[in-house]
Amino acid sequence: MTTRPIITLLTDFGHQDPYVAAMKGVILSLNPEAILVDVTHAVPPQDIIAGAFLLGEAAPYFPAGTIHLAVVDPGVGTSRRGLAARAGEQFWVGPDNGLFHLIFHRAAGLDMVSLENRDYFRESLSDTFHGRDIFAPVAAHLSLGTPLQAFGPPITDPIALPWPEPSFSPEAVRGEIVYVDGFGNLVTNIRGSELLPWLADTPHVIILGSLTLRGLVRTYGDVPPGNFLALIGSHGYLEIACAQGNAAQRLGLGAGKGRPLAVIKT
Amino acid sequence: MTTRPIITLLTDFGHQDPYVAAMKGVILSLNPEAILVDVTHAVPPQDIIAGAFLLGEAAPYFPAGTIHLAVVDPGVGTSRRGLAARAGEQFWVGPDNGLFHLIFHRAAGLDMVSLENRDYFRESLSDTFHGRDIFAPVAAHLSLGTPLQAFGPPITDPIALPWPEPSFSPEAVRGEIVYVDGFGNLVTNIRGSELLPWLADTPHVIILGSLTLRGLVRTYGDVPPGNFLALIGSHGYLEIACAQGNAAQRLGLGAGKGRPLAVIKT
Amino acid sequence: MTTRPIITLLTDFGHQDPYVAAMKGVILSLNPEAILVDVTHAVPPQDIIAGAFLLGEAAPYFPAGTIHLAVVDPGVGTSRRGLAARAGEQFWVGPDNGLFHLIFHRAAGLDMVSLENRDYFRESLSDTFHGRDIFAPVAAHLSLGTPLQAFGPPITDPIALPWPEPSFSPEAVRGEIVYVDGFGNLVTNIRGSELLPWLADTPHVIILGSLTLRGLVRTYGDVPPGNFLALIGSHGYLEIACAQGNAAQRLGLGAGKGRPLAVIKT
Repeated sequence: MTTRPIITLLTDFGHQDPYVAAMKGVILSLNPEAILVDVTHAVPPQDIIAGAFLLGEAAPYFPAGTIHLAVVDPGVGTSRRGLAARAGEQFWVGPDNGLFHLIFHRAAGLDMVSLENRDYFRESLSDTFHGRDIFAPVAAHLSLGTPLQAFGPPITDPIALPWPEPSFSPEAVRGEIVYVDGFGNLVTNIRGSELLPWLADTPHVIILGSLTLRGLVRTYGDVPPGNFLALIGSHGYLEIACAQGNAAQRLGLGAGKGRPLAVIKT
Repeated sequence: MTTRPIITLLTDFGHQDPYVAAMKGVILSLNPEAILVDVTHAVPPQDIIAGAFLLGEAAPYFPAGTIHLAVVDPGVGTSRRGLAARAGEQFWVGPDNGLFHLIFHRAAGLDMVSLENRDYFRESLSDTFHGRDIFAPVAAHLSLGTPLQAFGPPITDPIALPWPEPSFSPEAVRGEIVYVDGFGNLVTNIRGSELLPWLADTPHVIILGSLTLRGLVRTYGDVPPGNFLALIGSHGYLEIACAQGNAAQRLGLGAGKGRPLAVIKT
Repeated sequence: MTTRPIITLLTDFGHQDPYVAAMKGVILSLNPEAILVDVTHAVPPQDIIAGAFLLGEAAPYFPAGTIHLAVVDPGVGTSRRGLAARAGEQFWVGPDNGLFHLIFHRAAGLDMVSLENRDYFRESLSDTFHGRDIFAPVAAHLSLGTPLQAFGPPITDPIALPWPEPSFSPEAVRGEIVYVDGFGNLVTNIRGSELLPWLADTPHVIILGSLTLRGLVRTYGDVPPGNFLALIGSHGYLEIACAQGNAAQRLGLGAGKGRPLAVIKT
């Protein structure tokens, strides 16, 4: 007796339109036993880097065998490939445009195919909605046990994402903001697992524009309401926040992505 | 062994309030085997035409036997009827106010009843929330196999929606915008399946206010970012969009509904 | 044969970030049979009173045995306790900060424990996201049949919420707005079940700032569009609304909470 398969969905389709529902209808028509879980549908429109980050955040908490269906797809209808992959113990379906870069980068074991076998697509194929017409039915067929290689020829050269990596020197780490979350917290590309050993308890400051913070704190509650703070967030990355406030708004950073930031030993 | 029944939900209740959750609780209390799928809860408040359009967009992708529960209900508490229907191979439950017009209009085979048998309602009946007290339990009982006629007497005169139909002449098609999606794309009432045969590859322009577009394109990627374009969207209707932009905002159209548009042979 | 367990989720995490998905992944990793239902994730950030109100609104519609997982948690990472409880016929998991006050206050029968047994937490425990690392796995283990007392020692002193109670005199009831719903309707703390017997059909006015309304109506449709009205809403509380409009916006009340209101016999 097998467990019912889990299919997650991540898109930039928002919550107003019935696009996500159409994808779910397609999946459930093929496999009514699938458990559907929304990761988010509020990826900033066509922001592949944000989509890649959010997917990387949520996926590790799902069990082995989970199928992640992700559609942030500015190139829909052009010649960009679609792909399905097994990376680690989970499966991935979506456009080949960098959206799975962080996943594939970390994965132990990676098999990928280009989606070319039209037997697994919807019969009527639009040029504008491969999420519904290609990726949803492929995810459903995967959940029914169709092997990866049935969907198309293997590929080994998925599109890479221009993901910014932080630079470490003996005195300073330089990174940047890669994501502003729904609370206005500024998530950087500096991993706690790399920053903390580098710091080794040395006194330090965190500098973001005109904001200078003396040292990391442990929780949002460690500073008075309205004060800024730096901590290793639940993402595992260095994060700048404002206690009981919205750091992005307070700093006038808006989308904020790409702003440089430094951690400097003092 | 029967498949677990699917019940979809479409409302204008938004995502802040627990109204949708209350409906789901009522359904699962009666039938814990029901698979619940949200179509959208962001129908513009009390906009029956938008609700009808969105329901018509999502429903065809769901399997036979799906029960669609839809509540956009400005007349709740007045004498408007509630209805349950079988149209085609799916079921429909909600207020009789035009919300199902597009569905019923296209359906091959249609049985409708007026919801009058209080045995299938919640015992405590509010004047303001029939979604929870009448439509949710009726949908749940339908999913348990209760036959349509148990819920009330048959009806044959559902309320019609003032849905605008486009006009075709030898030289021009005149239509209007019926829906602005979450990306700001302007969806018209002109079906691709009628427009394309009428065009028969004749050169043509699409005119919306001061915007004139020379011919249809195939995908959003066919014009440079920031440019306007016209295409048959994934809905199957003629749609005006802005590549990697928000057409409604760029054109200052706001809600946009009702704006006239023409396709003219040149 | 047991029914699949229902776990509801209520948070202030919003819909952009993958925090809710991470919690769902954790739950489904432990119990793939769990039925997950979102109550709302749009509780105003860190607003425990609003969270308590919304939870109290939705929970009664769910069946006996339902597990309600709620996370509005400004004190995460401080010494505030986590709790699991059986109240009435349902279960509750979340921070001990007043979020369950309205539930516990009404419950017939109440057992509570402090979450201290780390065997039921995620192995890697963050300081910032107990929703994922403590509350989600505890809810999952509860759904698998783990008895309440396994999670930690019993407690009898949960944190109370400063929930405002209305005052009744022979001539007037004085209350306040406790919640503004997504339609801009102003929900007060005055229960219909207490107000109506007190009124006993006596003529009366409802006064909110400069707005004076003559008597309660039964439904939103009982006054012309754009007019204000007072009624016992579907919540069961006295509510001020604007027919086919947004009362909070029209009255310039914004968040609106805490505004005093009176019902006076005339």
